Amino acid sequence: MSGNSFGKLFSVTTFGESHGPAIGCVIDGCPPGMLLSEADIQSDLDRRKPGTSRHVTQRQEADRVQILSGVYEGVTTGTPIALLIQNEDQRSKDYGNIADTFRPGHADYTYWHKYGVRDPRGGGRSSARLTAPVVGAGAVAKKWLRERYGIGFAGCMRQLGEIEIPFGGWEHVPNNPFFAATDDAALLARMEAYMDDLRRAGDSIGARIDVVATGVPVGFGQPIYDKLDADIAYAMMGINAVKGVEIGAGFNAVVQKGSEHGDELTPEGFVGNQAGGVLGGISTGQDITVSLAIKPTSSIRVPRRSIDKTGAPAMVETFGRHDPCVGIRATPIAEAMLALVLIDHALMHRAQCGDVHVDTPRI
Amino acid sequence: MSGNSFGKLFSVTTFGESHGPAIGCVIDGCPPGMLLSEADIQSDLDRRKPGTSRHVTQRQEADRVQILSGVYEGVTTGTPIALLIQNEDQRSKDYGNIADTFRPGHADYTYWHKYGVRDPRGGGRSSARLTAPVVGAGAVAKKWLRERYGIGFAGCMRQLGEIEIPFGGWEHVPNNPFFAATDDAALLARMEAYMDDLRRAGDSIGARIDVVATGVPVGFGQPIYDKLDADIAYAMMGINAVKGVEIGAGFNAVVQKGSEHGDELTPEGFVGNQAGGVLGGISTGQDITVSLAIKPTSSIRVPRRSIDKTGAPAMVETFGRHDPCVGIRATPIAEAMLALVLIDHALMHRAQCGDVHVDTPRI
Amino acid sequence: MSGNSFGKLFSVTTFGESHGPAIGCVIDGCPPGMLLSEADIQSDLDRRKPGTSRHVTQRQEADRVQILSGVYEGVTTGTPIALLIQNEDQRSKDYGNIADTFRPGHADYTYWHKYGVRDPRGGGRSSARLTAPVVGAGAVAKKWLRERYGIGFAGCMRQLGEIEIPFGGWEHVPNNPFFAATDDAALLARMEAYMDDLRRAGDSIGARIDVVATGVPVGFGQPIYDKLDADIAYAMMGINAVKGVEIGAGFNAVVQKGSEHGDELTPEGFVGNQAGGVLGGISTGQDITVSLAIKPTSSIRVPRRSIDKTGAPAMVETFGRHDPCVGIRATPIAEAMLALVLIDHALMHRAQCGDVHVDTPRI
Amino acid sequence: MSGNSFGKLFSVTTFGESHGPAIGCVIDGCPPGMLLSEADIQSDLDRRKPGTSRHVTQRQEADRVQILSGVYEGVTTGTPIALLIQNEDQRSKDYGNIADTFRPGHADYTYWHKYGVRDPRGGGRSSARLTAPVVGAGAVAKKWLRERYGIGFAGCMRQLGEIEIPFGGWEHVPNNPFFAATDDAALLARMEAYMDDLRRAGDSIGARIDVVATGVPVGFGQPIYDKLDADIAYAMMGINAVKGVEIGAGFNAVVQKGSEHGDELTPEGFVGNQAGGVLGGISTGQDITVSLAIKPTSSIRVPRRSIDKTGAPAMVETFGRHDPCVGIRATPIAEAMLALVLIDHALMHRAQCGDVHVDTPRI
Repeated sequence: MSGNSFGKLFSVTTFGESHGPAIGCVIDGCPPGMLLSEADIQSDLDRRKPGTSRHVTQRQEADRVQILSGVYEGVTTGTPIALLIQNEDQRSKDYGNIADTFRPGHADYTYWHKYGVRDPRGGGRSSARLTAPVVGAGAVAKKWLRERYGIGFAGCMRQLGEIEIPFGGWEHVPNNPFFAATDDAALLARMEAYMDDLRRAGDSIGARIDVVATGVPVGFGQPIYDKLDADIAYAMMGINAVKGVEIGAGFNAVVQKGSEHGDELTPEGFVGNQAGGVLGGISTGQDITVSLAIKPTSSIRVPRRSIDKTGAPAMVETFGRHDPCVGIRATPIAEAMLALVLIDHALMHRAQCGDVHVDTPRI
Repeated sequence: MSGNSFGKLFSVTTFGESHGPAIGCVIDGCPPGMLLSEADIQSDLDRRKPGTSRHVTQRQEADRVQILSGVYEGVTTGTPIALLIQNEDQRSKDYGNIADTFRPGHADYTYWHKYGVRDPRGGGRSSARLTAPVVGAGAVAKKWLRERYGIGFAGCMRQLGEIEIPFGGWEHVPNNPFFAATDDAALLARMEAYMDDLRRAGDSIGARIDVVATGVPVGFGQPIYDKLDADIAYAMMGINAVKGVEIGAGFNAVVQKGSEHGDELTPEGFVGNQAGGVLGGISTGQDITVSLAIKPTSSIRVPRRSIDKTGAPAMVETFGRHDPCVGIRATPIAEAMLALVLIDHALMHRAQCGDVHVDTPRI
Repeated sequence: MSGNSFGKLFSVTTFGESHGPAIGCVIDGCPPGMLLSEADIQSDLDRRKPGTSRHVTQRQEADRVQILSGVYEGVTTGTPIALLIQNEDQRSKDYGNIADTFRPGHADYTYWHKYGVRDPRGGGRSSARLTAPVVGAGAVAKKWLRERYGIGFAGCMRQLGEIEIPFGGWEHVPNNPFFAATDDAALLARMEAYMDDLRRAGDSIGARIDVVATGVPVGFGQPIYDKLDADIAYAMMGINAVKGVEIGAGFNAVVQKGSEHGDELTPEGFVGNQAGGVLGGISTGQDITVSLAIKPTSSIRVPRRSIDKTGAPAMVETFGRHDPCVGIRATPIAEAMLALVLIDHALMHRAQCGDVHVDTPRI
Repeated sequence: MSGNSFGKLFSVTTFGESHGPAIGCVIDGCPPGMLLSEADIQSDLDRRKPGTSRHVTQRQEADRVQILSGVYEGVTTGTPIALLIQNEDQRSKDYGNIADTFRPGHADYTYWHKYGVRDPRGGGRSSARLTAPVVGAGAVAKKWLRERYGIGFAGCMRQLGEIEIPFGGWEHVPNNPFFAATDDAALLARMEAYMDDLRRAGDSIGARIDVVATGVPVGFGQPIYDKLDADIAYAMMGINAVKGVEIGAGFNAVVQKGSEHGDELTPEGFVGNQAGGVLGGISTGQDITVSLAIKPTSSIRVPRRSIDKTGAPAMVETFGRHDPCVGIRATPIAEAMLALVLIDHALMHRAQCGDVHVDTPRI
């Protein structure tokens, strides 16, 4: 219940630091009776892992997940599922020069002031590496939601710096290193060149990511505070480097009239999805649509002004191995977070209202 | 811990419906020893209350708050503070025609499907009226944060539909009916005319709101999940009608380079505030800056297609008394929510790290 | 989530002090669709209320409950149910003499040291009067558990000071002022005389209470920490004046052999109930049996040594109106707390394992 | 927040099963800046571990703890501390005969009915082996409480079956295999013989354990629900095999008069400690005194009647390696649980009331 747990009923508590011996999480509240193996989890971890193209960090981590508990003879028992991932490719010496200074835009400064002590190796706890256990937990959540309700997840990059990426179909996402939903070769080449230039310049760039859940039953969510959309915003803004979250129309709603924004209903269902699948904090049965703004990586080679622990001026250049665009690997993470929100609300709904009868249309 | 509580250590649990006998909340965890009277709370309630101009709902509610507990001889005792506000101007007959249909863009549909029962009078629990107790609780939080840390709050409207409102100074906010930080008479007249047109057309419009906390010490927040920015996003997206949340640079971060986004540090402090006062989930000591997208009110007179409970087509026109722009009254609500997030993190920080020594510079 | 809430999924947050304007609670998480009126709640409140015999406090309180929210047209809506009870018979002047001293055995001392401020009128927040809202919330829980699962609750006094009270049948409990399950006129007369003597002496006495839940399905509870029995112990020890809790064999288990304690199973069910209906933290389907030790009231007229706020010696005699045996009115409170534990576990079980099929024997 | 976490601010989430690859826990909320090594934790684990005398289970486990995270250069960082303990001596074949039947008095029956699936190897999650991570987490809590407040912990066995063990001094506890606070050689010999007889008979026995915390400041606890004593009762009843909990006078309070039970105050402090260090749910500054009833082990060789999964009659004899008196190893576990309760309340108190000034007497 202290800060490092996510979810009330399907609770994920993570642990570990970028350069410690291992990272992992404990999933408490997974329903019993589901088939679960390490292979079920590994595929999502492989989508997130580093070193898969030249456009992401070159740290080499197999990110092999081990299930330590909660599964007996291949079936979940209802008791906590612990996932463990060894850290294999720590290169802590890269961080010697930043142990006493603060990277602009990085958590170095705030951790040091909050705790009075800080693990500087690879960013310690603030490293995006800590999203690996979350992706593992998300894979468990996704499996249950798919098998129980037919819920699916997808995500893609929609913008890389100033390059907008038109949506061309989910099937293209696995076929390029950017999670882009396009097969436009010219566009993809432009993105590759853009990233190559950035890398040479030692700089980094922001991105926009969309993530969607399909097949969500109507009725998940709570009226006030623990609204489905509020919990989604919490989950998404909690991902490393996220600075903005939209649901449905998002900031476009500012210029919309009520007669334009409110999705009309017909006997065949909703007309349009400005709501992004949530009304009054509760799912409508439509797709849940979310958009994220991801800031550029703060660990860059470009020299920047900063101070050291004594408050004296210092220049900071970060070497180490970093993603020049953390947005690239953010797609599977955002999917995992969305799955964790939905399973928590699915279980909460079941607690309060009993099993949803998914086979019976409720309109 | 069920959905209707906000905050872990300064927990606010609200109750009530738009047309029930009363609304209110219980604040659990307010530190003892603070002077507190109803007058301390009333001023923020008065900023939020309906009927203060022709541009908001004409429902007449005094919104007089009564403290039922937790204060003895004018001082908080550390035990729960219950706030009660009577509902006085219910006009439930206005809702007869929507009891069996669903307003497009409204929670009618989802509540009915989730619970199988629904209080249609004034939107029941989903009414923006339920933000009144939150504003009351927020006033208590603001007072403690101001007295303990010198933290201040401010908010203003930045955009009304397509009309952008340049920031001209906080002092203007109380002097116009829109919470606009401007004294540009032509602009304000344009906004008045815009709202008058909308009202005549029976339509509604979206808005963008900024809210800021000043004087926040460095160190509030948690590394993962219960990040300060994640909790702010949760709080803001949980306000009725919000569809998007930005912190600091927000969606602008998408097109920023790392060398542009990361706020440099000098011995005099940060240069710029792209971070919006949060790095790695923890406050930097700078202003916390938040921006919200608020959708247009879904209760409009313009006829819209919908269905009834049997699934048959129906046209819906909403009469009753509604805000044509819910964004107008959202400013004090957003301030209150931000205060609730900050007090919770202030107490959590005190639990984990002891009292912050606000008089000692920590750089 | 701060200390004054009970339950994770059926959460009850209470507020109020003995001599404030009102006391009450907010119930968050009550399932929708249950018929509920104030009369459903009043009957249990009447069992607990003061002034019903000469053996309890003579404070006159009607303890009329008002439902402020969460019920529409007589049916629970799934949104928070607020219960309000006015305080009517405060006589705060009785407490003038204890505002600056500490009653031995009372919370006066600890509240003052914890908070640095204390409402001395009637014990403020520490008064047993605060069990009234709990009994109200318990009545709601009992109704749902009875209608959904056929679960019933009963309780009785088993010992009054040194007077042991043999169990003679639940039907006798409402027929005497002690909640004694007996119609033994001589024994009851002895108890009356015993209490009369105590009252004249200005002293008080302890008691032992048994409470039982029947019809509980197998499977409620969690393996570790949030065990059903652990939560029952928490609930019972949290009742004012409770100093000991037993489940099933309780302290008798100390002298039992394994071959004696472990309840054997036959195709017809368990043989015996040493377990008290809980094994491994999870309900067995047998009766849940609980026993409580309740200390004597600390507000007595007998003069006692104490100190005042300056630390100087002082003698304390408490006048006011007090129960000479708080154990007498504890029975409906203990039933209510047991009901609150069970409904929380019922909902948690439903979240994790789906609806229990109560019509299908699971052996 | 699902059932397998303990504590709100110093939260311990455990995982693992008796015969899985490893067991462990994640401690979230440990304050930063404390020196911590594996050796600090190992000593308490060694007090609890199996195989240290012929009177406990002969399973051979080194119970070596590994710190996976949360400590950097020997200092806690304020981020989650993961503890891992490998299981080394699983002998799962011993459990073949109980996979399809239910041991009387054991969780076999309830787990199977709750989850529909069960890990029968060594009791799976219900094994007392799962108290090892708790003892590890408790050691961390003890260290912080000792260094910050000077709080100490001690425990001893007070009764083994019908053999009462007079308290002769804490210094004797480590010198015998029973955690008995005595050096009475005749008594200890009698206990040894008693256990030898039991073991030969294949039976088991109950026990009573006392546990004490010293040096606790006044003011830890909450008025209602999350009372210090309520949380202690929850913690203690949650330990495997506990059936009863007393604080201070416990069940003796039933026969006490108010003039006898209420601890008088003098300028030198309290006279007596019937309260057991808690009044009104808040610590008094006296020793916290707790007593536990522990049932006999349910895994015994004595043949007992039971049923199998089909509901048919079956006789059960349990072979495997079991403690004939689980009470023997319960002392360090009870100390650990008490420490976990106290650190949580210490942090909660600090959140609400600021740092306790332990160097300033507050009377």
